[in-house]
Amino acid sequence: MRVALDAMGGDFAPEATIEGVKLAIEEMPSDSGIVLVGKKDIIDPLIAAKGIDTSLVEVVHAKDVINMGEHPTRALTQKPESSIAIGFGLLKEKIVNAFCSAGNTGAMHVGAMFTIKAIEGIIRPGIAGFVPKENGDYGVIMDVGANADCKPDVLVQFGEMGSLYARHIFKIDNPKVGLMNLGEEEQKGTLLTQAAFQLFKLDKKVNFIGNIEGRDVFNDKTDVIVCDGFTGNVILKFAESIYDILKKRELLDPFFNKFNYEAIGGSPILGVNGNVIIGHGVSSPLAIKNMLLQAQKMAKSNIHLKIKESLGE
Amino acid sequence: MRVALDAMGGDFAPEATIEGVKLAIEEMPSDSGIVLVGKKDIIDPLIAAKGIDTSLVEVVHAKDVINMGEHPTRALTQKPESSIAIGFGLLKEKIVNAFCSAGNTGAMHVGAMFTIKAIEGIIRPGIAGFVPKENGDYGVIMDVGANADCKPDVLVQFGEMGSLYARHIFKIDNPKVGLMNLGEEEQKGTLLTQAAFQLFKLDKKVNFIGNIEGRDVFNDKTDVIVCDGFTGNVILKFAESIYDILKKRELLDPFFNKFNYEAIGGSPILGVNGNVIIGHGVSSPLAIKNMLLQAQKMAKSNIHLKIKESLGE
Repeated sequence: MRVALDAMGGDFAPEATIEGVKLAIEEMPSDSGIVLVGKKDIIDPLIAAKGIDTSLVEVVHAKDVINMGEHPTRALTQKPESSIAIGFGLLKEKIVNAFCSAGNTGAMHVGAMFTIKAIEGIIRPGIAGFVPKENGDYGVIMDVGANADCKPDVLVQFGEMGSLYARHIFKIDNPKVGLMNLGEEEQKGTLLTQAAFQLFKLDKKVNFIGNIEGRDVFNDKTDVIVCDGFTGNVILKFAESIYDILKKRELLDPFFNKFNYEAIGGSPILGVNGNVIIGHGVSSPLAIKNMLLQAQKMAKSNIHLKIKESLGE
Repeated sequence: MRVALDAMGGDFAPEATIEGVKLAIEEMPSDSGIVLVGKKDIIDPLIAAKGIDTSLVEVVHAKDVINMGEHPTRALTQKPESSIAIGFGLLKEKIVNAFCSAGNTGAMHVGAMFTIKAIEGIIRPGIAGFVPKENGDYGVIMDVGANADCKPDVLVQFGEMGSLYARHIFKIDNPKVGLMNLGEEEQKGTLLTQAAFQLFKLDKKVNFIGNIEGRDVFNDKTDVIVCDGFTGNVILKFAESIYDILKKRELLDPFFNKFNYEAIGGSPILGVNGNVIIGHGVSSPLAIKNMLLQAQKMAKSNIHLKIKESLGE
């Protein structure tokens, strides 16, 4: 099982990425390896300086870096030897089982769509986010920003993919799937949620429990929250800001600490032919470590194949 | 200045409403009066029992009550002598300057639309909510649930109405209006937000500062957050649930206490020919008091006329 990491991705790379690798190695199963993609002349000395066992990490040289502000499609075209382009190449050729980066989010998304591509039968791949639950688990929320405008059948696939993720990665039996709405009653909501509700009722692939509301994000009514990428993005960023305010006001406790993006490390793209995680631009070593561990779990369960078997054509 | 209150509205009425009136009287200006609408035989003894000065409150008898679960339109048609129907009658006849209720939200909304009606020129009246700001103020968020699906020009009017509210009720000079979106850049978002952004750029009536994100709900980038009723409803209920979790975990401080719905008391309907506030079903005496004080401010500033002058046809 090999997980590739864009060593150059993120505001604090490569310092933070290499330090994150060091932390991850301590917790990863012995049959796992890490492939670092990036400038070898910078990475090698950092690995040595941190005393990382070089038998556990491999470095694949990439002479370019896509910067945070670059236009995703243009950058990927103009920089075929960037760490993100080469990382996706390794994933496409099945040299690695997962690829993750805290670099340019758009480039990661575009890279996934154009190299490993969407699974046939998946209308729109989406990005899954995670919310801590009062019962101690994490819940999946999907989509969190890849698709601002969605059709009803796209929302249904988000529910199906999120459900597979909750089952195979979080080991939740028969995950409860809820549709984010402004009221619980069937007829409530937008034209989109009303139509999606009717499709979910007929869907045998998920355990649909009906509409949920903003107040249900953290309770245990659902394991998977379905919404368009606009709504999911607003919810996720709002939750992050609350964590920041609590921290600033020194009001921390174990539940709210789980809001911290570092605890989960990154957001997977679901519905593409490979395991891909996008990390936060400001990723710390702890965030990188958790992203690598999540990638390792995704690779081990082969979640993208589970999605393909269940939903692909 | 007379404010009418549905004495029978809310899960804990009439006990909580009459107790709320008692609290409000202590803080209201001496030229203000309260008109209680409801069953006189129940209200009068409660007023006496609580030792409320009867020269400051007037009771208008209403023999019926619209219950929480009733269908709004049907209930209003079948119960013309309900406290909500009679309250709107008083408002329409200008016997009172504002009307508020913690009763059936739908009936309050329908009652406003069918008795005092939308201001001519207002495409869709909306419900404004309030969010505490880190700088100590409150911000306006609109719409929070009256209109799930919105057109771009409707969002622009929400911004204009919210701006007038912030100016005249919260006394904020030149309120900053932001469009809730999933990114700050102009081209980001849904078809709706992209189109609304272009309209806002040309709008001379508001101080449009551009797109904001979920993380900006509580900071001072904006005084007015514009969104469709679906998004606003999700944000508001999510915020309320966070307050509840904090309270449960005994993590309270002055900023997060302002999340408490009781602190503001209710949500005004903006864009109709009169001052109307809808309270939370579970309203406590404190919430009723603050709803009455807010209604009094709305009546004093005649906010509905300000909206009519600025936006009406």
